[in-house]
Amino acid sequence: MNNIIRENHTLLCDFYELTMGNGYLLSGMADQISYFDVFFRTIPNNAGFAIAAGLEQVIEYIENLRFSEEDLEFLRSKGVFDEKFLAYLRDFRFTGDIWAIPEGTPIFPNEPMMTVRAPAIQAQFIETFVLLTLNHQSLIATKASRIVRAADGRPVSEFGSRRAQGAHGAILGARASYIAGCTGSACTIAEQLHGVPAGGTMAHSWVQMFDDEYVAFDRYCALYPNNPTLLVDTYNVLTSGVPNAIRAFKTHDITHCAIRLDSGDLTYLSRKARKMLDDAGLTECKIVASNSLDEYIIRDVLLQGACVDAFGVGERLVTSKSHPVFDGVYKLAAIENEKGKIIPKIKISENPTKITNPHFKKVYRLIENHTGKAIADLLCIHDEVIDTAWPLTIFDPDYTWKRKTLTDYSIVELLKPIFIKGKCVYRRPSTREIRDYCAAQLDLQWDEVKRFENPHNYYVDLSQKLWDLKHDMLRGGGHA
Amino acid sequence: MNNIIRENHTLLCDFYELTMGNGYLLSGMADQISYFDVFFRTIPNNAGFAIAAGLEQVIEYIENLRFSEEDLEFLRSKGVFDEKFLAYLRDFRFTGDIWAIPEGTPIFPNEPMMTVRAPAIQAQFIETFVLLTLNHQSLIATKASRIVRAADGRPVSEFGSRRAQGAHGAILGARASYIAGCTGSACTIAEQLHGVPAGGTMAHSWVQMFDDEYVAFDRYCALYPNNPTLLVDTYNVLTSGVPNAIRAFKTHDITHCAIRLDSGDLTYLSRKARKMLDDAGLTECKIVASNSLDEYIIRDVLLQGACVDAFGVGERLVTSKSHPVFDGVYKLAAIENEKGKIIPKIKISENPTKITNPHFKKVYRLIENHTGKAIADLLCIHDEVIDTAWPLTIFDPDYTWKRKTLTDYSIVELLKPIFIKGKCVYRRPSTREIRDYCAAQLDLQWDEVKRFENPHNYYVDLSQKLWDLKHDMLRGGGHA
Repeated sequence: MNNIIRENHTLLCDFYELTMGNGYLLSGMADQISYFDVFFRTIPNNAGFAIAAGLEQVIEYIENLRFSEEDLEFLRSKGVFDEKFLAYLRDFRFTGDIWAIPEGTPIFPNEPMMTVRAPAIQAQFIETFVLLTLNHQSLIATKASRIVRAADGRPVSEFGSRRAQGAHGAILGARASYIAGCTGSACTIAEQLHGVPAGGTMAHSWVQMFDDEYVAFDRYCALYPNNPTLLVDTYNVLTSGVPNAIRAFKTHDITHCAIRLDSGDLTYLSRKARKMLDDAGLTECKIVASNSLDEYIIRDVLLQGACVDAFGVGERLVTSKSHPVFDGVYKLAAIENEKGKIIPKIKISENPTKITNPHFKKVYRLIENHTGKAIADLLCIHDEVIDTAWPLTIFDPDYTWKRKTLTDYSIVELLKPIFIKGKCVYRRPSTREIRDYCAAQLDLQWDEVKRFENPHNYYVDLSQKLWDLKHDMLRGGGHA
Repeated sequence: MNNIIRENHTLLCDFYELTMGNGYLLSGMADQISYFDVFFRTIPNNAGFAIAAGLEQVIEYIENLRFSEEDLEFLRSKGVFDEKFLAYLRDFRFTGDIWAIPEGTPIFPNEPMMTVRAPAIQAQFIETFVLLTLNHQSLIATKASRIVRAADGRPVSEFGSRRAQGAHGAILGARASYIAGCTGSACTIAEQLHGVPAGGTMAHSWVQMFDDEYVAFDRYCALYPNNPTLLVDTYNVLTSGVPNAIRAFKTHDITHCAIRLDSGDLTYLSRKARKMLDDAGLTECKIVASNSLDEYIIRDVLLQGACVDAFGVGERLVTSKSHPVFDGVYKLAAIENEKGKIIPKIKISENPTKITNPHFKKVYRLIENHTGKAIADLLCIHDEVIDTAWPLTIFDPDYTWKRKTLTDYSIVELLKPIFIKGKCVYRRPSTREIRDYCAAQLDLQWDEVKRFENPHNYYVDLSQKLWDLKHDMLRGGGHA
């Protein structure tokens, strides 16, 4: 038996989900089938795409959702809930359906990355945990993808646990980083729980614990002759660290090895260190760089000719420091009436970007056959069918005169069934499989979308039928 | 029995803590008594101070630190650890001493907020979890303190769970926000686990779920006549939301109530809404504002005369969006030789701000008696004694000609014993007590230190003895 006991996160919900739930029950709406979409509005760092992540933890959460007697007692003590509602919660199980875009898929603003269809109380109740899980991991995967691309083929390891926002920030941050292409993490438990390769060598304290830097390196090489990495900046990189490292590698006859630079000017120091290592015949010794790195610094030091073979990236990755919020929301898209007819719902706003796309929807990714590249995503009403034997005209939902007709194209339906009637129907890929899938999905995107600055604005269009419905509802003040 | 089962976070460590531990054991240094300091270098947002938080969770972690058989089996599978080390871990208990600055205390760069004295393997092993816990909660408490001060006496509730970086980011973010002065949180489990008052009312989906906004409000007032808060921006604030809210409050004869604005121009809308409410005789109806707020926006809308009585603050608080990293580090300060003599250690760097303060230290806060305000913190070697009957001359450690002699002053020793020989000796205050203590400690700080922009740079000085030791070590290339 594994000793990792999951916390009960059932009450990790916004309190209003419970006051609304109590209200739905007392208003005879407990079983009102509702459709909620999870989607986001802004790509962090003005990038061309985000990477979906966190679905695995949503599945675990849904499957483990139970109110314990202690939970019920706590809620009773708040003095606002009807006993009928507490009785309802005692038997609470998620019985609805969930569709989601698989982890590792590039995703774009305003398209559902998840759709939940369930009785109102259930669908409303899971809002907070679903959002925080998808928001957090998608945020970190999106940032990691940028950093990995900046490293241009060099391995990037996630080093940020100590600066993460809480334990799950560290563990699931490491998971999301790995999905997006990092080769591993310093976080040990991320391997134990999620199969993210964990590694690491020494801190400055190892060097300081000995009387002398060379003694510390010599001892380390004796203990770990198989590819040791020596940290060379405790005292002085070029006059002490690198010479002592060379002496230790030579003493132990080690050629498969590395040094790590954790401060100072990485370009200058790495070039000088490279020359010293090469002059000593240690041409296979790698140089690892760390110290508050991100995609911008990595790109810069490489452009300046830094001799760095691998990167360790900490706080700026694990918190997505340059843009630490993924703005996924959870919005009502439809309800079913007593006859099972779907009634679309819309949220209007003074701010046009905050207006939602109504109805139960499908999301298609359209692939151009002759290039094998994605050209647009298309949101359709759930029962629309696209026949790729026929040309398809797509148009910009805001500037409707911008039109394009596709002839030689394929479609991929992005939202996959995850839960049907409360049962998980999804084959859960391993973290490694998700990582491979992510790499393959990135290959479907044009370089123009992957650019760091001013990327091409990927098209997320509405089908004519969905566009017409939305505009009818807007004209009707929010009603279909 | 409480159903909240804690996760086993023992392996939430950087892998190098284990490779170093294995190395210490095999090098006969397992029992080498070591002193590590936790301190930070940069106050987020260029503010005048930070707020210490997270100690309670460090205590829980230390007390629960155990390697399970599964943990050991996992580590064995990595193929780098000696069986003697795995045997050592099987019986692992923390047996050392820990001193820390209590949660809720304003803290400043370069002073130890925690000192760990323990055998090398133990002291090194806890590095990651200790740092991530103190870094995360201190970050959020520091941000919350700013937001609460900007609200100028109006209640601020933490609303950010859905955008938090993981579950602990949400739960412990709510805890840290409460410590620093928030009045509560939307996060239900934060009350269950940490006594943070949880509250909340309705989402847009409640309004959308009904055929009509008035029906939704009417139903809500019938269900919750005791101080209902109605969300008025689902369709149109001034033409629909506020009139429908007024009608519902009137219908149910409710005067103790509130409306919430979650979009649009908060200054304009709140002033218009205030007038409509007052004209309807609902002068006691409060206006709550939310929507991507932080200290800057709150200050601005209040300066512009917004009629807001309370704020809900989400993503920008729970992630400390403007500065999402607290840069606490864990650095070796000393070891003991075989005779128990303390040998100070220093970490040198090309960058002077990264040079550590050596030795086992005390931290005194110096209070000016006639104002009751803090004037400086003083780092001393552990056995130094300050007699407040005598004048005390303090000086800037970089610009040593800047001197000040104190005569009428008191001292408070900031580092309190938490663990002695592995036993917790600290009376753990409740979250509420910490919150009250935090408010009282803030009153010791001058307004100049609490300023948002260009605050006074609070003095963190070294005693003459510590300063002399540090400079002797720097001249000696890092050795005492």
